[in-house]
Amino acid sequence: MREVAIIGAGMTRFGELWNQSLRQMFVEAAAGALNDAGADRVDSMYVGCMSGGQFVGQEHLGPLMADQLGMTGVAATHVESACASGGVALRLALMEVASGMSDLALAVGVEKMTDGADVTNVLATAADQELEVYYGVTFPGLYAMIARAHMARYGTTEEDLAWVAVKNHRHGAKNDKAQFRREVTPEQVMSSAMVAEPLRLLHCSPVSDGAAAVLLCPLDQAKRYTDRPVKVVASGLATDSMALADRKDPAFLDSVQRSAERAYAMAGLGPRDIQVAEVHDCFAIAEICCIEGLGFVERGRGGPAAREGYTALGGCVPVNTSGGLKSKGHPVGATGVAQAIEIFRQLRGEAGERQVENARIGLTQNMGGSGASSVVHIFQGV
Amino acid sequence: MREVAIIGAGMTRFGELWNQSLRQMFVEAAAGALNDAGADRVDSMYVGCMSGGQFVGQEHLGPLMADQLGMTGVAATHVESACASGGVALRLALMEVASGMSDLALAVGVEKMTDGADVTNVLATAADQELEVYYGVTFPGLYAMIARAHMARYGTTEEDLAWVAVKNHRHGAKNDKAQFRREVTPEQVMSSAMVAEPLRLLHCSPVSDGAAAVLLCPLDQAKRYTDRPVKVVASGLATDSMALADRKDPAFLDSVQRSAERAYAMAGLGPRDIQVAEVHDCFAIAEICCIEGLGFVERGRGGPAAREGYTALGGCVPVNTSGGLKSKGHPVGATGVAQAIEIFRQLRGEAGERQVENARIGLTQNMGGSGASSVVHIFQGV
Repeated sequence: MREVAIIGAGMTRFGELWNQSLRQMFVEAAAGALNDAGADRVDSMYVGCMSGGQFVGQEHLGPLMADQLGMTGVAATHVESACASGGVALRLALMEVASGMSDLALAVGVEKMTDGADVTNVLATAADQELEVYYGVTFPGLYAMIARAHMARYGTTEEDLAWVAVKNHRHGAKNDKAQFRREVTPEQVMSSAMVAEPLRLLHCSPVSDGAAAVLLCPLDQAKRYTDRPVKVVASGLATDSMALADRKDPAFLDSVQRSAERAYAMAGLGPRDIQVAEVHDCFAIAEICCIEGLGFVERGRGGPAAREGYTALGGCVPVNTSGGLKSKGHPVGATGVAQAIEIFRQLRGEAGERQVENARIGLTQNMGGSGASSVVHIFQGV
Repeated sequence: MREVAIIGAGMTRFGELWNQSLRQMFVEAAAGALNDAGADRVDSMYVGCMSGGQFVGQEHLGPLMADQLGMTGVAATHVESACASGGVALRLALMEVASGMSDLALAVGVEKMTDGADVTNVLATAADQELEVYYGVTFPGLYAMIARAHMARYGTTEEDLAWVAVKNHRHGAKNDKAQFRREVTPEQVMSSAMVAEPLRLLHCSPVSDGAAAVLLCPLDQAKRYTDRPVKVVASGLATDSMALADRKDPAFLDSVQRSAERAYAMAGLGPRDIQVAEVHDCFAIAEICCIEGLGFVERGRGGPAAREGYTALGGCVPVNTSGGLKSKGHPVGATGVAQAIEIFRQLRGEAGERQVENARIGLTQNMGGSGASSVVHIFQGV
């Protein structure tokens, strides 16, 4: 397999983008990535989107988006793995270039969530319809059960949960693409409205619109496009049972651990080598479970990490310097690609006020459903 | 890239499968492919499905289907390119093995269309929502316009159209997986109910349920599993403008030609080398345009091909020996994989009454929308 690098990135602001349609957001992000790299063509593109069909009545996003971008004819495919759709698009673009099928492959994530669909029910189609949704549970409820299990087993507290949001809002306040550019206090989080006990409104990522794109090429061609390519050194994808009730331990995300192990093995690296990471904090408890699955902290020790500053900017492993899903926003199909853009910026030293000093190795972890799928990528500055 | 072979295949019957759910059909096909190869594991799987979300309220089919198959944990991804979803799943499984990411990759196509969704409107989400569907057109109307353009330019007749159905029903009558195992006469086709002038009911593929699966591995490992692997020698994917009105020539499918050119170039072969082919006859006019795009006949000369026996069993290039979408059925996400299974059977000499003698090289062409995407694969007996 050929070595592969990211050579350009583009994204929309995340938020309630009332005056931008699905296709307009796509074009802004994709054209941004091409312009960033100074490229005027692609060989192939992968479009990560959870459900254009259910959100805005539009499937077949591969050819539509190639067409909208003025690249009618190129190989283009839509891929979906719920909220991990963007991460999977990146993985396939990586495989496309690594295999030699394409020299220039674009990975784009996009989602339009605010245009009138019943968002909670559309998102619930990423859970098991027969074993979960039929009985009335949606994602806030599923993650609330994960949180309760974690609190019962490991003594994780409501304050621990609150600090995930506090930390990520502090980071997101420094990100001009973020949906919520403001800090919150632990008291504000713990007095916000209850959504699904113990998860409150400020423990939950918002409903968002947005798109994000990265352009990949073989590492040995990267210098044609940029002085600062970022190498994609590994990709790991893993699944777990769809239904939470089928898992041995609902307080641990097996798919995160498996996907990380696959990526670490491919990279020849381990969790101690990671200097900056974007992880899937769709709910505060998810970040806690993810940093355990990734091996950043021991199993059961994720609770205090944000509160104690371990995962904050300036801490041992800064997590979600972009603001994460919580503060930056979570247009579900776009999230996995936006995570890669944050690491791309960090490893190029372009992250401004939220720069992690001397960051050379970074990681992204993007999750679908309540952890039924997880995809991990590891990146290295060149 | 490594050479890749199909080592096993499995599929459900196609039809109105009232007592099988999406996941049950998936398992029947996938387990069938594994059993056929004598394999008890996979490294990865790609699930082609147009819209589990809209048809049965279930997205996130990668992990769900891995779980259902008893393979929780493996890398699994859902891919979509409307009615070409199955073909794209095959392409990605091929790339997965060719690149060295996996040794055993499963490509599965599946669709459950008869469970109550408004099928015509769900299918229409594969057309351009803003430029086509908003104005009321659905796929029978789009293909009717293609047919009218072809008739006007090339003198293609209603009888030519009818003979595509007559031929494919003759083939499908010999296929025990087919939805309609009966022959039809030109008179029956030409007196069936008008759907969208000039297309009548018997020019149109039906609404179907079904699933199909093939298992791929590196060619140099294939003999561990079967004495008769079939090599996948090329894959070509191309797109065209989504909206028919944006195309220079609505009577010609550019994406079919482009995807075929890419596949022929990769294989070092041309249309004259193809001895048996499955092409995308969602409507009778589609088969006519596809055989032109594939280069089996000259541009504008597709009309008489079925009527004159050129594409019939025993003819120069037998097309849709399985019965095609018309007679075998068209569970949209499953179709592309089912096409590959027919060629797999033909190249192994296992096609029974519909066997093409001494077939060594075969082709599949699977299309999305009104030709906005097309994917071509070329296969060779070993």
